[in-house]
Amino acid sequence: MSESPVSHEPPIYRRIADGLRARILSGELRDGDRLPGENALMADHAIARATARQALAVLINEGLAVPKRGSGVYVRQFKPIRRHGARRLSREQWGQGRAVWEADTRGRPFTVDRLEVALERATEEVAGVLESDEVWVRRRRYSVDSRPVQLATSYFPAHLVEGSAITTPDTGPGGVYARLSDLGLPPAQFTEEVRARMPRPWESGLLDLPAGTPVIAIVRTAYTSGGLPVELNEMVLDSAAYVLQYDFEA
Amino acid sequence: MSESPVSHEPPIYRRIADGLRARILSGELRDGDRLPGENALMADHAIARATARQALAVLINEGLAVPKRGSGVYVRQFKPIRRHGARRLSREQWGQGRAVWEADTRGRPFTVDRLEVALERATEEVAGVLESDEVWVRRRRYSVDSRPVQLATSYFPAHLVEGSAITTPDTGPGGVYARLSDLGLPPAQFTEEVRARMPRPWESGLLDLPAGTPVIAIVRTAYTSGGLPVELNEMVLDSAAYVLQYDFEA
Repeated sequence: MSESPVSHEPPIYRRIADGLRARILSGELRDGDRLPGENALMADHAIARATARQALAVLINEGLAVPKRGSGVYVRQFKPIRRHGARRLSREQWGQGRAVWEADTRGRPFTVDRLEVALERATEEVAGVLESDEVWVRRRRYSVDSRPVQLATSYFPAHLVEGSAITTPDTGPGGVYARLSDLGLPPAQFTEEVRARMPRPWESGLLDLPAGTPVIAIVRTAYTSGGLPVELNEMVLDSAAYVLQYDFEA
Repeated sequence: MSESPVSHEPPIYRRIADGLRARILSGELRDGDRLPGENALMADHAIARATARQALAVLINEGLAVPKRGSGVYVRQFKPIRRHGARRLSREQWGQGRAVWEADTRGRPFTVDRLEVALERATEEVAGVLESDEVWVRRRRYSVDSRPVQLATSYFPAHLVEGSAITTPDTGPGGVYARLSDLGLPPAQFTEEVRARMPRPWESGLLDLPAGTPVIAIVRTAYTSGGLPVELNEMVLDSAAYVLQYDFEA
């Protein structure tokens, strides 16, 4: 739907927001550009401050703009990370000692800036999928260009990975999939479930999300060729930072 | 991230919201259940009405609950439609005269309750992908269980589909892909780009979205085996109504 099927004239703040939005979506206004301030909008459109503020609030609520304290409202369009569903998880990727993550960023600097590895009792949901009551859990936060973009929590059946580098902070070249492969359990099949929703408060905090930014929640299960589930990975992505790409055949 | 890494005690409205959220996410409170009202929260927690209202607002903003005018706040968990990326677009599906949509709903009643078919000049973006300045456009709204769940706008290069049923409201058995096949242009390869964001005002209106509900925006391009782009489909999904599933191999 590229045009707005409106049946009557929208209020003025809405029309101003429509105009600014069109300029952002067309690329005329770009990431980091300052939007016209309240004073400029008041003068240009002969409106009250409250109306100007309302127009800017529309764009902030849509996640297209962010207010910076005391300095105005700015276009928010972080160059998105293209996350390629199948290619990044191909055996060629982790089989050659490359981290899955490298496929996403195409050379942009990224960091795992939080990492927690623990042996835990599985929740009912996780135990149901992995068929295991005890799990090794790896919780990470990923940042790109110093900006947190993703939280990921991976669960592994404890009896399968005990003693491997999966239970230590540094999993070595190729990461956890290469280690599963060393254990004779190479992932062969992946299922991803993708949802979008508003963030929980702690997710907003950890991802430093401005108000009005939804998250993409992905649950991925990795199976061996024999159908054994070897990993469950719950990911929470800043929606403004990502485009997911999936290619498939008819 | 299943637990909240808080560094200090959160405010009372936040703790009440956390408790209600946990009950919703665990399934104890279910779709359509009424949440405790402001009066009940005030009595149970010895708090002011404004605090009770704030606690409920947290859940409404997260899309977990919806207010119904004059009757309280209800859990919102529409049984999601499982949209299976690859299976639904398989040749077996449309090749046998079934609509792609049938794969999603598993028999739940659905309707196309808005449909507009038109010959238009392509936007720069669409023209760039389809390599065509004139396009046939099909705009639909889909509803399931009488609830609007998806807007979809498909574009076809005009010179390729001119004169076919793709340019008429009823595309016949198997839909547009079967007709492209009749024209010697069966889709062989699909690319989907998935994003999440807050809805534009007209999308909220057409999808009847409560405040705080993001949308999933999917752009799909269909290519023939020769790599010719034959359709560009822009979809906007109510995020509360959908789980997208993608399966792939390592």
